Amino acid sequence: MPFVRIMLEAERPPAVRRALADTVHRALVSSLGIPAGDRFQIVGCHGDDLIYDPTYMGMDRTDDVVFVQIFMAVGRSVAQKRALYRALAEGLAADHGLANDNLFVNPVELARENWSFGQGVAQYADIVPPHLASA
Amino acid sequence: MPFVRIMLEAERPPAVRRALADTVHRALVSSLGIPAGDRFQIVGCHGDDLIYDPTYMGMDRTDDVVFVQIFMAVGRSVAQKRALYRALAEGLAADHGLANDNLFVNPVELARENWSFGQGVAQYADIVPPHLASA
Amino acid sequence: MPFVRIMLEAERPPAVRRALADTVHRALVSSLGIPAGDRFQIVGCHGDDLIYDPTYMGMDRTDDVVFVQIFMAVGRSVAQKRALYRALAEGLAADHGLANDNLFVNPVELARENWSFGQGVAQYADIVPPHLASA
Repeated sequence: MPFVRIMLEAERPPAVRRALADTVHRALVSSLGIPAGDRFQIVGCHGDDLIYDPTYMGMDRTDDVVFVQIFMAVGRSVAQKRALYRALAEGLAADHGLANDNLFVNPVELARENWSFGQGVAQYADIVPPHLASA
Repeated sequence: MPFVRIMLEAERPPAVRRALADTVHRALVSSLGIPAGDRFQIVGCHGDDLIYDPTYMGMDRTDDVVFVQIFMAVGRSVAQKRALYRALAEGLAADHGLANDNLFVNPVELARENWSFGQGVAQYADIVPPHLASA
Repeated sequence: MPFVRIMLEAERPPAVRRALADTVHRALVSSLGIPAGDRFQIVGCHGDDLIYDPTYMGMDRTDDVVFVQIFMAVGRSVAQKRALYRALAEGLAADHGLANDNLFVNPVELARENWSFGQGVAQYADIVPPHLASA
């Protein structure tokens, strides 16, 4: 269900892009209870076309910045979103040495029926999956 | 009004990308009553940077996968969204031989005044267009 | 807070892409009161992969078209959105000679807690920033 867009300023080789995406997915699984198989992501390196303020909100950002935009079903609490941000920051620091200042996260919430995973049907409109039952 | 992002894993030549976008637009017109002229789309081939689970929700996905993200005005019913998914699946199968398992659709709904089509004005904030009157 | 995606059909050199992004940001600052430092953008030239209807809603669009998608916190009034569109159209005309017909704007509104600017925390969930206090 989540469709995740990961945007990097710096050029990274394919294996590193993939490893970053692996870490991001693990953070979604651990913090939101998303099924391990529910993984759909797009990664890109954008160079100077990714523009960021280096200090807004007291951060010290560099060209290592990682932007994560997460299209996900609506309904998570503020506490769950906080846990998501923390899990992403901790995971990217542990696995990739990313400074916590270099992580920008931006969930975009959509109705449950706004997902078709295939076969031209709205899977979550029919049956609420367990990981969304409490959401 | 809809702004549609079509993302492919496999590399496709420009004429095929355009033909896929044609089919997607026809499905929006036929299922949601969107005016034929209301067409704004972006297409891209992303290779291994488009990451998908091959089996989530019982599908059999391959590198032919097509992701369609549709930014559209809020207000369609669940029935209309189901019709949209079905029209996309049927159209892409008929015109391009796409397996129904390889279609991922994800509408993102926005307020009517969140569209400016030009001239720096909010066209749909002033006059509700006929195709949104019942939405 | 806003994360802004600027999409061009025509190929433009890096300095022009940057200057367009500068103008877009100034319009957000002047019309919505966004802090000057709150700047996060991505720019891209997409050629024929950016598909647009040349006349929908009475416009005369050309390959100079500029699409601006703005992910921003929810809560602006319709009047503020109108002011945003006007400021974008005026700024891009003044700075870049862009015809007003060639500007497409599409805000996507998100909850305040849907922003993490770094450190794995939800800055706007804790303290409402002044420029959002009246939003």
